[in-house]
Amino acid sequence: MSVREDCKKASECRYEAAALSTDLKNRVLVDLADELEKRADEIITANAVDIERAKAGGMKESLLDRLTLTPDRISGIAEGVRQIVALPDPIGEELGGWKRPNGLLIRQRRVPMGVIGVIYEARPNVTVDVFGLCFKSGNVTIMRGGKDAFSSNEAITAVIHDVLKRHDISKEIATMITDTTHEGVGEMMKLSEYIDLLIPRGGAGLIRSVVENATIPVIETGTGNCHIFVDESADIPMALDIIENAKTQRIGVCNACESLVVHSGVSEKLLSAMEDRLKKHNVELRADSRSGEFLKDPVAATEEDFGTEYLDYILSIKTVDSVDEAIDHINKYGTGHSEAIVTSNYDNANRFMERVDAACVYVNASTRFTDGFEFGFGAEIGISTQKLHARGPMGLKALTSTKYVIEGHGQIR
Amino acid sequence: MSVREDCKKASECRYEAAALSTDLKNRVLVDLADELEKRADEIITANAVDIERAKAGGMKESLLDRLTLTPDRISGIAEGVRQIVALPDPIGEELGGWKRPNGLLIRQRRVPMGVIGVIYEARPNVTVDVFGLCFKSGNVTIMRGGKDAFSSNEAITAVIHDVLKRHDISKEIATMITDTTHEGVGEMMKLSEYIDLLIPRGGAGLIRSVVENATIPVIETGTGNCHIFVDESADIPMALDIIENAKTQRIGVCNACESLVVHSGVSEKLLSAMEDRLKKHNVELRADSRSGEFLKDPVAATEEDFGTEYLDYILSIKTVDSVDEAIDHINKYGTGHSEAIVTSNYDNANRFMERVDAACVYVNASTRFTDGFEFGFGAEIGISTQKLHARGPMGLKALTSTKYVIEGHGQIR
Repeated sequence: MSVREDCKKASECRYEAAALSTDLKNRVLVDLADELEKRADEIITANAVDIERAKAGGMKESLLDRLTLTPDRISGIAEGVRQIVALPDPIGEELGGWKRPNGLLIRQRRVPMGVIGVIYEARPNVTVDVFGLCFKSGNVTIMRGGKDAFSSNEAITAVIHDVLKRHDISKEIATMITDTTHEGVGEMMKLSEYIDLLIPRGGAGLIRSVVENATIPVIETGTGNCHIFVDESADIPMALDIIENAKTQRIGVCNACESLVVHSGVSEKLLSAMEDRLKKHNVELRADSRSGEFLKDPVAATEEDFGTEYLDYILSIKTVDSVDEAIDHINKYGTGHSEAIVTSNYDNANRFMERVDAACVYVNASTRFTDGFEFGFGAEIGISTQKLHARGPMGLKALTSTKYVIEGHGQIR
Repeated sequence: MSVREDCKKASECRYEAAALSTDLKNRVLVDLADELEKRADEIITANAVDIERAKAGGMKESLLDRLTLTPDRISGIAEGVRQIVALPDPIGEELGGWKRPNGLLIRQRRVPMGVIGVIYEARPNVTVDVFGLCFKSGNVTIMRGGKDAFSSNEAITAVIHDVLKRHDISKEIATMITDTTHEGVGEMMKLSEYIDLLIPRGGAGLIRSVVENATIPVIETGTGNCHIFVDESADIPMALDIIENAKTQRIGVCNACESLVVHSGVSEKLLSAMEDRLKKHNVELRADSRSGEFLKDPVAATEEDFGTEYLDYILSIKTVDSVDEAIDHINKYGTGHSEAIVTSNYDNANRFMERVDAACVYVNASTRFTDGFEFGFGAEIGISTQKLHARGPMGLKALTSTKYVIEGHGQIR
């Protein structure tokens, strides 16, 4: 079936999805979690086909790892679905209401977004994740997974469809696009009559391509060139703990620290101690000349370093003379994801929170907390680095819209 | 200067705009209102140049009217600016905060969007309107007015710049793009590194072009194919008042009624009385065959009629046999703007509010109330018919984003 036909049929289920009761949605998700575990063998057999093809095609080890499903991983995916069951249903929440002088009662009510398209790469776990979150929030999901995960996605979708069928729900509420060509995804990005929102999940290249080509509203997720600024008044042991955690606890994630900004008043004290701490993790230090003075083994940082999200054991370092210089540097090179200051100065803490332009601005804490679970949202569809609709970690509410309902007794203008 | 250069310079003022105090912003707006009235002659002289050129070019009467500025209209524009002064500043509002088990205090704070680009046509009043709203909400405004209003916009921008200068604020906070070519606007729509949000204000063609070509997030405003459904249990005099008001009080606006849906149980009673009421306004009635039976002078409605926003003295009419059939018809042909039911049946009222997919859903009131002022927002930047970020009438808050500020005492993961 063509991409257009797939999307049209999915779109026709939007009112069915919106009208599902919370109880029914939860029963479906509980069954889905159980069924995924029960049919793990079937999914793993399909996954083996993808892995074999990927290996023959010379896929990189790290990507192969993301593609691979094991019984444990499938249990983890099922557990994720059970966590969604436990979340409150956002649909039907009333955000506020007021009465106008003419007697009209206006209320703003949370409603599903409608049809959400998700474009992702070779991670089959995303299929379940995304369906669970979109379904719980009353939406139709159109999934376009990477062709590398085609068989795995097919097997997972079969499980989802069987569970939906058991509850008399149209299977098109979870639509997997089977045309995985480049033209197919290009067509999908322009079907604004059927899709309300597109979320690309994947690398910077995928996201850029969707942002540049889609005519449907897109939520951009992702890149994080995150800084930690150590102010003159910082507690140095605290700063060292935060830097070590944010840089090395997990390197390939968007909320990891990529760049250190240090006040010249503490650079000597901080940097020599830090070099020892980070050496244990084999972190390469790319420093400007002022910072390099206090390091035994620095690499000279280029202009490009300050704008790079390494996702690796590399840290760029810049020395500044004031909190304002730090703020300017961060606003210039940051990607608006997560930025932290370590300070014991009240004014500098407030100034940093006020002036740094990012989704999440931290005082005396690791940037690694930018995460839907760490924020207490119980789930996460991604971390938005754009300013429209949702900014920062996105939970179920980011998948909803609102409408106004207005009640009167014959009012006219 | 090139469009790129203009936008880059504007973007460099984003932190200056965000940091302006409410008091200062209000003083600037008060001065702007006064100055516009004081320099009305200068603006009208510039406007005359545009009008002359437009007449020579054969511009339609209705467009010429929108282009024309008079002392009264300039006073009206100034009054609009004074109303913005009276509105609460949305910036700095805290939307909520909570403490995590690990002691992190997370707060969500309202911040400016950053740089807002507005693309509009030949209505010079939009220049002041848009600047006032964006400025009050801490944003930089990049305006791309139509070339037909070039001289008027130049004169108005000169007044804005003089007032900004008097308060030591960079004039690029209000940037008028002087390159009014097609290529220029095409370039502007792709400058996502400098512009956070694009709002097209104008006809359907302009909006479609922006949605299709922009790589910057867009808020779609506008088209309204609004319905009134008269249920079997409706109070007929109330229904007649609402239909007459929504259809004829002002025909060229997006919240005017374009289509009547009537329950077969009351179609005879309603339609004959309605024909008399609407005949006074010379409204043409385009009816399906079942509705036409009860009209003296119907025109046969085509499929296309039901999908048309006339913005004219024309009304399409469709007879249905149930509230569900009405809801399906409206969800099929509506544009998601404003839809109304007239009923005295409690269940039908609730079902209609629940199931109709539109920004504003009315019970027993005219669709004409979909408006920022009528909603009590005190201002309006447009009416969003999309589901992302803002839906329905948009006040100052629609021009803002949020950020999370997170305070700790050394927390790491």
